[in-house]
Amino acid sequence: MNGAQALIRTLVDSGVDVCFANPGTSEMHFVAALDTVPEMRAVLGLFEGVVTGAADGYGRMADRPAATLLHLGPGLGNGIANLHNARRARTPIVNIVGDHATYHHQYDAPLDSDIETLARNFSGWIRSSKRAEEVADDAADAVAAARQPPGQIATLILPADVSWLEGAAPVGPRPAPARNAVSEDTVTVVAKALRSGEPVTLLVGGAALRERGLRAAGRIAAGTGAKVVGETFPARLERGAGLPPLDRLGYLAEFAVAQLAGTRHLVLVDAKAPASFFAYPGKPSSLVPDDCEVHVLATGPDDVVDALERLADAVGASGVDPVLQPSGRPDPPTGPITGATIADAVGALLPDGAIVADEAQTGGLWAAGATAGGPRHDWLTLSGGSIGMGMPLATGAAIACPDRPVINLQADGSAMYTLQSLWTQAREGLDVTTIVFSNRSYAILNLELSRVGVESPGPKALSMLDLTSPDLDFVALSHGMGVPAERPEDSEGLTRALERALSEPGPHLIEAVFPSGF
Amino acid sequence: MNGAQALIRTLVDSGVDVCFANPGTSEMHFVAALDTVPEMRAVLGLFEGVVTGAADGYGRMADRPAATLLHLGPGLGNGIANLHNARRARTPIVNIVGDHATYHHQYDAPLDSDIETLARNFSGWIRSSKRAEEVADDAADAVAAARQPPGQIATLILPADVSWLEGAAPVGPRPAPARNAVSEDTVTVVAKALRSGEPVTLLVGGAALRERGLRAAGRIAAGTGAKVVGETFPARLERGAGLPPLDRLGYLAEFAVAQLAGTRHLVLVDAKAPASFFAYPGKPSSLVPDDCEVHVLATGPDDVVDALERLADAVGASGVDPVLQPSGRPDPPTGPITGATIADAVGALLPDGAIVADEAQTGGLWAAGATAGGPRHDWLTLSGGSIGMGMPLATGAAIACPDRPVINLQADGSAMYTLQSLWTQAREGLDVTTIVFSNRSYAILNLELSRVGVESPGPKALSMLDLTSPDLDFVALSHGMGVPAERPEDSEGLTRALERALSEPGPHLIEAVFPSGF
Repeated sequence: MNGAQALIRTLVDSGVDVCFANPGTSEMHFVAALDTVPEMRAVLGLFEGVVTGAADGYGRMADRPAATLLHLGPGLGNGIANLHNARRARTPIVNIVGDHATYHHQYDAPLDSDIETLARNFSGWIRSSKRAEEVADDAADAVAAARQPPGQIATLILPADVSWLEGAAPVGPRPAPARNAVSEDTVTVVAKALRSGEPVTLLVGGAALRERGLRAAGRIAAGTGAKVVGETFPARLERGAGLPPLDRLGYLAEFAVAQLAGTRHLVLVDAKAPASFFAYPGKPSSLVPDDCEVHVLATGPDDVVDALERLADAVGASGVDPVLQPSGRPDPPTGPITGATIADAVGALLPDGAIVADEAQTGGLWAAGATAGGPRHDWLTLSGGSIGMGMPLATGAAIACPDRPVINLQADGSAMYTLQSLWTQAREGLDVTTIVFSNRSYAILNLELSRVGVESPGPKALSMLDLTSPDLDFVALSHGMGVPAERPEDSEGLTRALERALSEPGPHLIEAVFPSGF
Repeated sequence: MNGAQALIRTLVDSGVDVCFANPGTSEMHFVAALDTVPEMRAVLGLFEGVVTGAADGYGRMADRPAATLLHLGPGLGNGIANLHNARRARTPIVNIVGDHATYHHQYDAPLDSDIETLARNFSGWIRSSKRAEEVADDAADAVAAARQPPGQIATLILPADVSWLEGAAPVGPRPAPARNAVSEDTVTVVAKALRSGEPVTLLVGGAALRERGLRAAGRIAAGTGAKVVGETFPARLERGAGLPPLDRLGYLAEFAVAQLAGTRHLVLVDAKAPASFFAYPGKPSSLVPDDCEVHVLATGPDDVVDALERLADAVGASGVDPVLQPSGRPDPPTGPITGATIADAVGALLPDGAIVADEAQTGGLWAAGATAGGPRHDWLTLSGGSIGMGMPLATGAAIACPDRPVINLQADGSAMYTLQSLWTQAREGLDVTTIVFSNRSYAILNLELSRVGVESPGPKALSMLDLTSPDLDFVALSHGMGVPAERPEDSEGLTRALERALSEPGPHLIEAVFPSGF
């Protein structure tokens, strides 16, 4: 058995049975070995950003890692933006980067570069495999590292000769890493703040955003009068009718400041202390109110949900009923297409169990509101701020959950970073419906330009934010990659198109053109 | 004057007057400052790989750096693959990466990451600007570093507050860095080898591949009987009728070994000792014949052409006429489209002064031969092996040389990495004709699969190399980005389409579909 065969067998035995791949010559033995392990599914991406973003979407929905397969340093480079987003989402990923044979580096061949340094940018664990005899152990370690709570990227650098040499053998899975229990002292201190009578806000994120955590936070809120706010860009948020509703902290610092105003105790539940997304001239970066005490209930490695439930007990709220989101959908929209009517169309038709991959940016401001009372669904957001995540994320989520419809709310400018995702969706026959919010502008930058203090931008500056001349034709682009697409004229047409897309198997794209701005 | 204004003014005064940009919020003051310096041209790319590849194409043709503008670590990540290619091409680039404000890092905001570590992968010079008062000096130093022979990437990390704070002032250009003179001893030693009567091969690359260097090498060959071979993937090679012709060292090690067989003295002229592109089981990586002595005449920082001319003098060949490429074009092709007929169509119609950006991979094997006797042109190749370079390279070359037609020979699989280039070509009205070699396969990997020793690949392995299911429709993709496109049925149609494309201003795309393989 060669190294690649032992590696793939070990991955499968450790629970990793999907590999998103964009291989090159140095990965050919890995590719050949795929056929020796029938359980391993290989999914080709035409660009590495698709591969890494799909692994992120998969990991968020499957709660276990997919593997990637990338081609040397430059292939890894192309994957970095979405690995950055995955790092911020704390998604478990086994990130496999093929490398030259161990003895080949001395020749500094054209594709040679320092992969390990590059991988430091986003990896929680890095190892370069040295020998075929060791690669199965390396793989098992990589899976365990990726699964280390709350989840991280484990990068395994795989020299070509480690893949092709014989003498390897698979190894069994490592024990599943456990979460840390939060100390009783910590729970007691936070409970005291909640009973102080002073205004308390729970900022909840990460592992707290599934049903059990939301219910526990909801009980605490109902029992103590505390406010619950969600982190701005959750990796995965369970929501819909029957679950406690959750307002997320605003992206715009001005809004976030208003949400947190008056808070005397801020309790961080697997969330970071709120800070401005960017710095702005003359404005503070920290969004923690001046006279507010910050308490940390639980962080990523902790058993976050257990801590919340113990906290609910400690404040006597375990029997309290949380406020739940009532059921309700918007009416199907009419008239010209706007960000708000797109949101209403989605809200009107959202299927039960849908997964929403949200990279709609400014155009998507209304989407969360319009879907809040819909059937149960998961909401995935742009965790790391690096645009070009939505389409790959939707792709990976659909692979992880083949029985659930995926809706990708996708800004036009952001779509152009990883548009190749559509081809993978077509090839794999994935039930992904992409709605392109086509306002033909980097609209968020028009907003940011004024927020950073630029009062009268000149024509060159404005041209850097403008996506006209020429207009992008997303219907043609989608057809070019084998995905059926249409461009409705109005909101009625949009609703009909969405209904059709959701009722037919396989991927669809709808280009919703609406005026730039809000 | 704020930092961004002083920075851009200094760049222009230092000879950098094109900026390929894909900005975000942290770059908004730079963007706003563009309008204060009329000489600076800003070119928007929809993806950072377009930006960095265009800067590479620009630098190769303009012989001076363009600037980039990228958005934090993830934006830099997306640009790394083509920065890798630019590093291998030794292209001068001032690579500007916007960063959070200096005081904002402590909050570890979503887009925060370690930019400097990432930049080590490809940069010859890195500096993070600290204060608005210093950023102009930083910019002038960056330009000088980029121009340090043979050329390199100078990465300037630009915190947002360094851009927006007042108190900055532009500075004048640094002195142009000079090349080192090669010692007389070195010339003498190489001259002795050339006069030894033993078989000598000159492996020429880099700066030796323009007219003066090629003529000097050609005189040495004609005067001494030495063989001249070009490096495999030159950044820029001048060729055509009336210039000394140059065979390049084969990509396939088997071919390269045959080309170098019998060489007793290998003289490296701004080229690296030949090594296999990848390692293959049981085959040597070094391609230097066993009994061959390697001499280094000149390396990148040296005055390579001067060294060659002095060597020609030293061997008494300065008055010798080099063998020159006779004029001649293939007939326009007929019948079904193949890699060979595409090459013939290009050879039949190649305009005088054309720039060829060659990323045709396997399908392009015949292109160099079919164009050898055409009018004078420049040939740009995939210097670093990271696919996705051709379309951005063509874009940047067209910006550098607005009066010269650019032909991009483009493999289909590779096209899908940086296809967004077409939009920039349309927006800027660039005279780029893209011919997509659409064999619907990563054909080179089919070849490599057998070369690495995989004899009967299974269906999963083969599916990783296959670009059908669905077929990509490059005509639709091109239309989607505003570039006129057609898909001819046969070689006659291909020739007509190419003729039309070359006769009309602005970009065009021709999808040449032909069977997979060779």
